[in-house]
Amino acid sequence: MAPRQKGSRPAKRNRRDDLLQAAIEVFDEKGYARASIQDVADSVGMLKGSLYHYIDSKEDLLARIFEESDAQSFALIEEAKGLELPAVDRVRIFACSWSLWYLQNVERASIYVKDWKYLTGERRQRALDQRRAYEASLEEIIEAVKREGSAAPGLDTRLACFFILAAINGLPGWYRRKGDGAPEPIAEIYGDLIVAAVCGSGLALSAEIAGLADF
Amino acid sequence: MAPRQKGSRPAKRNRRDDLLQAAIEVFDEKGYARASIQDVADSVGMLKGSLYHYIDSKEDLLARIFEESDAQSFALIEEAKGLELPAVDRVRIFACSWSLWYLQNVERASIYVKDWKYLTGERRQRALDQRRAYEASLEEIIEAVKREGSAAPGLDTRLACFFILAAINGLPGWYRRKGDGAPEPIAEIYGDLIVAAVCGSGLALSAEIAGLADF
Repeated sequence: MAPRQKGSRPAKRNRRDDLLQAAIEVFDEKGYARASIQDVADSVGMLKGSLYHYIDSKEDLLARIFEESDAQSFALIEEAKGLELPAVDRVRIFACSWSLWYLQNVERASIYVKDWKYLTGERRQRALDQRRAYEASLEEIIEAVKREGSAAPGLDTRLACFFILAAINGLPGWYRRKGDGAPEPIAEIYGDLIVAAVCGSGLALSAEIAGLADF
Repeated sequence: MAPRQKGSRPAKRNRRDDLLQAAIEVFDEKGYARASIQDVADSVGMLKGSLYHYIDSKEDLLARIFEESDAQSFALIEEAKGLELPAVDRVRIFACSWSLWYLQNVERASIYVKDWKYLTGERRQRALDQRRAYEASLEEIIEAVKREGSAAPGLDTRLACFFILAAINGLPGWYRRKGDGAPEPIAEIYGDLIVAAVCGSGLALSAEIAGLADF
């Protein structure tokens, strides 16, 4: 990060962050469709009029949440993609780190999964393009697993990709911190489940081994 | 099915089915929140007044969609649970048949996944209870896989269950028939991915085998 320059108005920047955080909480709790700008203003302790100093509309807030979330999740997949490790480890690292991001940012992730449909025009297109690019990055890693010979025989890359993303996208649907345990072990387990799905069942191999032991 | 009795007014019964089908299509296309009873009436070619002969409210339609969907999906999991086969085959059969149901009923399944939140009071509670019962049935089969020694070592039953359900719940999010291929092969592939996730990666075993081959 570049050092903060003089006159960069940190107070204002923080207010903007507070606003976005409040919007995430309000949209998550009330649902985007039912939530109002007034709710966000109340939550952050601002007058509605002052709030319009930062944004023009409710959709602006949603679009910002998507931009930030896209940036964060792209950083995670790009990092995993670039590691000089066997592809299967890159799958595991991606699966763990992305699951962890969902678990540690569960309200934001919940919005990210389901509220793209409230974006309109170019913004919606952009959100869908980003999703497609994300899928392409994951497909690339899975293809590398295949080239390295670690994938389940005949693995369908596109379907495996949808399968994995949907499993992770489902996290905010059930995980709400209280009583569900810490995020880290869950993310690790999701990593195991995803690597297992990509690499294929040990069952066929076990049967083979059992067969060898028999004779 | 019991033979149809005289005087059972089949025309009326079919009209009810048409209405439910129209509601599914309208809710799926417009989104439940935005769709109106008038939209459903227009779609099925009924006057709004006549439609109230069958239902009292838009939520009534949604509740019926949920009741039918619950009945259909429960039948699938109960069938898989009751089969006299190794538990891992029951997991596969459940995974395939439930995926297939989603793919063949993609509009209905899309509503089933996301619109429970529009149900209110007892109806919402019932939908959530059904979901819990469904999870419990899947957990039961996974526990049986563990008892039979086919599961990945240390598999977390509850997380595996959420993982699997979320992966299948994601199907309506991307599958829309045109260009995505026939449902059956996709359902088979989902069965493979889910069995692999439950049974654990072949990778550790492969490494062991590779190790044996080396020395």
